Amino acid sequence: MRKKIAVIGLGHFGEYLSQKLSDSGSEVLAIDKDPEKLEQIKDAVTQTVCLDSCDEKVLRSQGLEEFDAVVIALRDNFEETLLTIMNLQKIGVKRIIVRAVTAEHQQILRHLGVDEVLLPEEETAIRLAQSLTMENIIDSFSLNDDYIIIEAEAPGEYIGKTIRELDMRKSFGVSLITIRRMTESKGVLGFGKKSIEKIIGIPDADTVVERGDILVLFGPEKNIKKVFGKN
Amino acid sequence: MRKKIAVIGLGHFGEYLSQKLSDSGSEVLAIDKDPEKLEQIKDAVTQTVCLDSCDEKVLRSQGLEEFDAVVIALRDNFEETLLTIMNLQKIGVKRIIVRAVTAEHQQILRHLGVDEVLLPEEETAIRLAQSLTMENIIDSFSLNDDYIIIEAEAPGEYIGKTIRELDMRKSFGVSLITIRRMTESKGVLGFGKKSIEKIIGIPDADTVVERGDILVLFGPEKNIKKVFGKN
Repeated sequence: MRKKIAVIGLGHFGEYLSQKLSDSGSEVLAIDKDPEKLEQIKDAVTQTVCLDSCDEKVLRSQGLEEFDAVVIALRDNFEETLLTIMNLQKIGVKRIIVRAVTAEHQQILRHLGVDEVLLPEEETAIRLAQSLTMENIIDSFSLNDDYIIIEAEAPGEYIGKTIRELDMRKSFGVSLITIRRMTESKGVLGFGKKSIEKIIGIPDADTVVERGDILVLFGPEKNIKKVFGKN
Repeated sequence: MRKKIAVIGLGHFGEYLSQKLSDSGSEVLAIDKDPEKLEQIKDAVTQTVCLDSCDEKVLRSQGLEEFDAVVIALRDNFEETLLTIMNLQKIGVKRIIVRAVTAEHQQILRHLGVDEVLLPEEETAIRLAQSLTMENIIDSFSLNDDYIIIEAEAPGEYIGKTIRELDMRKSFGVSLITIRRMTESKGVLGFGKKSIEKIIGIPDADTVVERGDILVLFGPEKNIKKVFGKN
């Protein structure tokens, strides 16, 4: 079934989100008090409405209680975000998701009963810090304090071995999710070379690790560090 | 070995990043032209320097060519980011990572030879759009256009079955990375109940799926949709 989602605040985040939601087939209502922002997005979304979301009466007239979710992506003024949340709660919106900027905002929002708070800058900073401090690690994603999913270059001693021979699960308590591999391909006209990235899917036991392979691994962070020779 | 990392621009992103890098044991040099921003972060980092990164001469005096990486997190003025990159390239900095705001900026940065460009708002918007449009899906992470890692509530018909019985790999070409499970625990003093989330690690074939379990799955996006009954 087509989802109905409203996005309040059409800065970069709101704009990206509206676009992606429309691309995946949702019905998107874009709300902003600045007509110029709406003009930019209007061809991508189902409907745009120019209004100030701090005003309960005009917000109430939009039928937002019928929507599957309302995302608040107001950036500059935290008071506006707070007033908008209170209005949406009074209207009886089913699901309210808020994009916040600081951890202090997040605390206040939780206190107001908003559980779905996004902190894009913090999330990205955490991942970048991890990839910068762990050698070989290209990207990472923490599931909780212990478990982590990482992408890292295959250690040199793994090259030429099969997944069965390495048995990372037995040796390190780490599981191999998949392998990213660069392949050189000829141009369609028969010449010209280009490196293309390929994800080999769910690796089977006979897959051989090649030089330059990027392993996507899951396990406790301390075990993953052992794979890369750091205790 | 301790990594040496410089962060230029101490807005929210630069601040989060400096903090996380220090927490993981890196040596952090924080650079901003606003002394107030540096004052806020000074206890968390190794050193702060107040300077305008657009000025090649003062930037050159910082010995940044010895650093493992320099992260540019200037936000408001894209010209400042461009001038700072050019200065760092002239100085011979090994690794330059730039936080950008729009996809247009990213294109320009790539053209300048900066391959490591971060777009926190776009990344988070993509993940939120995915979780809002796919039923049951709590969070997701795209590896490329086909493959995806998702977190989703276990479908009702999975409850009470073992991983072996379900054999998602055979039925759907999807692999189960792990399961997140809420457990009720008594307080240490013997009363009081609290829900605690537990990650069950690398699931073995005899693990039984329980009501409320959240499955973390990897596979092609179209296959994952089949697991949840949508083609």
